Amino acid sequence: MSDVILLAPHDDVAVATRDLVPGESVTTGDGESDGNPTVVVVRDRVPRGHKVALRDLPLGSEVRKYGQVIGRTTRPVPAGSQVHVHNLEMPRMPDVPGASDAASDYAYATEHRELPVPEGERPTFLGYRRADGRVGTRNYVAIVTSVNCSASTARFVADQFRGRALAQFPHVDGVVALTHGSGCGLVPTSEGGRTLLRTLRGYAAHPNVGGVLVLGLGCEMLQVDALVAEAGIPADTLVRRLVIQETGGIRATVRAAVAEIEAMLPELDARRREVCDVSDLVLGLNCGGSDGYSGITANPALGVASDLLVAYGARSVLAETPEVYGAEHLLTRRAVSPEVGRRLIDRIAWWREYAAAGGGTLDNNPSPGNKAGGLTTILEKSLGAVAKAGSADLAAVYQYAEPIDTPGLGFMDTPGYDPVSVTGLVAGGATVVVFTTGRGSVLGCKPSPSIKVATNTAMYLRMHEDMDLNAGRIVDGTASLAEVGREIFDLVLAVASGRETVSEELDLGQDEFQPWLLGTVT
Amino acid sequence: MSDVILLAPHDDVAVATRDLVPGESVTTGDGESDGNPTVVVVRDRVPRGHKVALRDLPLGSEVRKYGQVIGRTTRPVPAGSQVHVHNLEMPRMPDVPGASDAASDYAYATEHRELPVPEGERPTFLGYRRADGRVGTRNYVAIVTSVNCSASTARFVADQFRGRALAQFPHVDGVVALTHGSGCGLVPTSEGGRTLLRTLRGYAAHPNVGGVLVLGLGCEMLQVDALVAEAGIPADTLVRRLVIQETGGIRATVRAAVAEIEAMLPELDARRREVCDVSDLVLGLNCGGSDGYSGITANPALGVASDLLVAYGARSVLAETPEVYGAEHLLTRRAVSPEVGRRLIDRIAWWREYAAAGGGTLDNNPSPGNKAGGLTTILEKSLGAVAKAGSADLAAVYQYAEPIDTPGLGFMDTPGYDPVSVTGLVAGGATVVVFTTGRGSVLGCKPSPSIKVATNTAMYLRMHEDMDLNAGRIVDGTASLAEVGREIFDLVLAVASGRETVSEELDLGQDEFQPWLLGTVT
Ligand SMILES: [Ca+2]
Ligand SMILES: [Ca+2]
Ligand SMILES: [Ca+2]
Ligand SMILES: [Ca+2]
Ligand SMILES: [Ca+2]
Repeated sequence: MSDVILLAPHDDVAVATRDLVPGESVTTGDGESDGNPTVVVVRDRVPRGHKVALRDLPLGSEVRKYGQVIGRTTRPVPAGSQVHVHNLEMPRMPDVPGASDAASDYAYATEHRELPVPEGERPTFLGYRRADGRVGTRNYVAIVTSVNCSASTARFVADQFRGRALAQFPHVDGVVALTHGSGCGLVPTSEGGRTLLRTLRGYAAHPNVGGVLVLGLGCEMLQVDALVAEAGIPADTLVRRLVIQETGGIRATVRAAVAEIEAMLPELDARRREVCDVSDLVLGLNCGGSDGYSGITANPALGVASDLLVAYGARSVLAETPEVYGAEHLLTRRAVSPEVGRRLIDRIAWWREYAAAGGGTLDNNPSPGNKAGGLTTILEKSLGAVAKAGSADLAAVYQYAEPIDTPGLGFMDTPGYDPVSVTGLVAGGATVVVFTTGRGSVLGCKPSPSIKVATNTAMYLRMHEDMDLNAGRIVDGTASLAEVGREIFDLVLAVASGRETVSEELDLGQDEFQPWLLGTVT
Repeated sequence: MSDVILLAPHDDVAVATRDLVPGESVTTGDGESDGNPTVVVVRDRVPRGHKVALRDLPLGSEVRKYGQVIGRTTRPVPAGSQVHVHNLEMPRMPDVPGASDAASDYAYATEHRELPVPEGERPTFLGYRRADGRVGTRNYVAIVTSVNCSASTARFVADQFRGRALAQFPHVDGVVALTHGSGCGLVPTSEGGRTLLRTLRGYAAHPNVGGVLVLGLGCEMLQVDALVAEAGIPADTLVRRLVIQETGGIRATVRAAVAEIEAMLPELDARRREVCDVSDLVLGLNCGGSDGYSGITANPALGVASDLLVAYGARSVLAETPEVYGAEHLLTRRAVSPEVGRRLIDRIAWWREYAAAGGGTLDNNPSPGNKAGGLTTILEKSLGAVAKAGSADLAAVYQYAEPIDTPGLGFMDTPGYDPVSVTGLVAGGATVVVFTTGRGSVLGCKPSPSIKVATNTAMYLRMHEDMDLNAGRIVDGTASLAEVGREIFDLVLAVASGRETVSEELDLGQDEFQPWLLGTVT
């Protein structure tokens, strides 16, 4: 078992996996060449989850963790010392938020990291290739509702296809009712209207959806026909529409909808998975119920898997703007172009205004609990969230629910709130989601599978029926970051090919459809 | 069949129930003494739904409809003329919105209407009397969720009790999962947090709920224990709590929750309805999918029923602030005290700011479609919505989801959006809701029954399986306002005593639980 975790080669600090005491020697690194001393003698008490200096750090030194500067020493720090609030402060650099809000203070596209394609055979998975060339990992019927008033009806219809009802259609994964609380007085051209419309269209056109039934009440602003128009639905997706007020009420609509879906099933069940290249995958990255281990186990392990996918040419998308806040200046440097970097900063500026209009501030500073857990600065905290995205260049920035159309690592602007964030990613076209959690979040996201990665072993054991993989082994010292990263990568491919996640076994993922509702409710 | 509808005695105009042509004579009134000429000779073409003058109106005359001034003539208008935008404009009065926003321009508590208790035996209904003295009209088990993360689990549990599962417990009306999209990062002391907490507590303590299971994930801000504390749950309500992260995940929680509810059922099934006075009723008033007939059929008929309830000492609550906007100065005059009137104006001021912060305005002016349908001024439009509340004094103004604790007519501040508005009323303690609709809204609202009243016969026939009562007969001329109002009153008592509404037969009302989500989502 390793005493410490090194999060990136050449880091100045490592994270203790147990309480360290003065005088003991600890071994760093995971056996690979990482440019660090292999043995350090501990000088202070360093609690589990806290940082220990790997080399002498003179006054004013930049201190690196995750390969990034997380602060500057405020006194000389000898190797083996604890590094925390008493000897580390936020770096004063021109492009650090707080110094100034001007976008010109950020550096854009100044870093570039080549992620070489691993040697050996290219990985593949078994997916559903759709008429527009995109590849699904599931084959669902989606009932897309234009308004809350058709929500109950949509659920009544979906309920008819639960349990054994689809037993004779083994290539159809289910019928999912996508219901929400909006759509009535919403002006389709308002920001809230456009966001909801983009979300609903993204689901209607999703490659994991073979057939779609669009269901409205009739008197809503967001009309069924307008929803389907320009949704970019693949030509081979079966599309049906029903409007309750035209169909004669709820009972009549349930009967008609069940008949429409029954008529689709034989054709949908004839679809077959085929061998697809790994680059056809679209991965959504997310976390929820984070704890002190998220940033040192599950998140960086997911970053390893994301980098592998990006190296092969797949798409992988980070999200949750408020949780990334404080590290956006590092993402702008990783942007492939100044334009991409500026799109990110535009979204950050939007969030500052949004938070101010709500009477708050966009605050991602470490809380007292965070500090007790070992997090010293806002940068370090945000880097723990950004770690899910590995080290790839940032190829694209998407608005909420915008189509994910660019190979490589992307960033989608979403709230941090789990169901709302994941709904945006799936609407954008994510066909697999990996969700890291410390406290035990239980999110599913039909029609896409969500792989749950536990950050710590205690929670994994307590909630093993709800977790797919235990990254807590990294802090237990029984597996390396690289090993768990590879396991996540392999699991993504297996799940993409049809292996059920625990949330699918539990039939979760319908209630978690939660579009971002912007704008006032009147 | 009547050619015109007179909405209040002494009105200056009546509404045509068919297209009227010059030269014909029409009979006004419904056979009661109403202070109007009984026959008027029509001078203009007056389309169905439009207004005809009942007497000569000199230039500058105040014109009354609903017993209220809806405008002032801009030229002399002879009896039998059409009254519309060409000869009527908004009155210029010091307390009309737009003249000034200052609360001092409103008149408070200047009008008082005595509603005499009708002669004869007092009506009663069969209700469930709870330990705190309140009376329920249903006997539900409610699963109250503290966060979206327990939504799927709550539904899995409720699903176990659907269909025939409760057949052996005939005095238990169902198990309803009250799920929502919020609760995670929500600060309980913020405006949004307080509003959600009040809503969830209102349902947990609702007299239609005999047993409540409060279900959380564990890591949410809004904790299960804080939710139950100070909820004012009656002493005889059975209360259970479960937290997924403490119970060992979803499967274990579903098992535990089903067992907890099964254990409640025999005790709940032993409860019996008893004879209760009509004054124990709490009625929620609402409308949705309104049309040109709402303000002349279903809404004023509901006003007749509401006035009867208020006369007997029951509670009846109007809502939907944005739809009342423009007539609030009439409600302030009807307020029982200046304090009550000012509470209303405070909420109007809040809405103006809320709308402005969202980049819009609080706009209830008649649209071109409204004008084509016969509505001339904002006052007239708002009066059509306010008509649901009859003519009683305004005894109380409630914030969203606040306990409805004052006998008489109340007003609750809610959005106009149907599910959000009705959720606030039920949270406040409404045990029956009457919902008027022109287009055919299909709203249910477990654990309270909702009575659907159609404004027109064509829709009623098209969607008869979704409507409880047809007020379109008023404009067809086959029933009077007073008659339909009495029918609504009788139906409220029958439904309160256990008669199923169509939405209950259809098992609607779980998805329509939509708390008002205020504040920013991060
Ligand atoms: Ca399956
Ligand atoms: Ca999150
Ligand atoms: Ca770059
Ligand atoms: Ca029943
Ligand atoms: Ca409404």
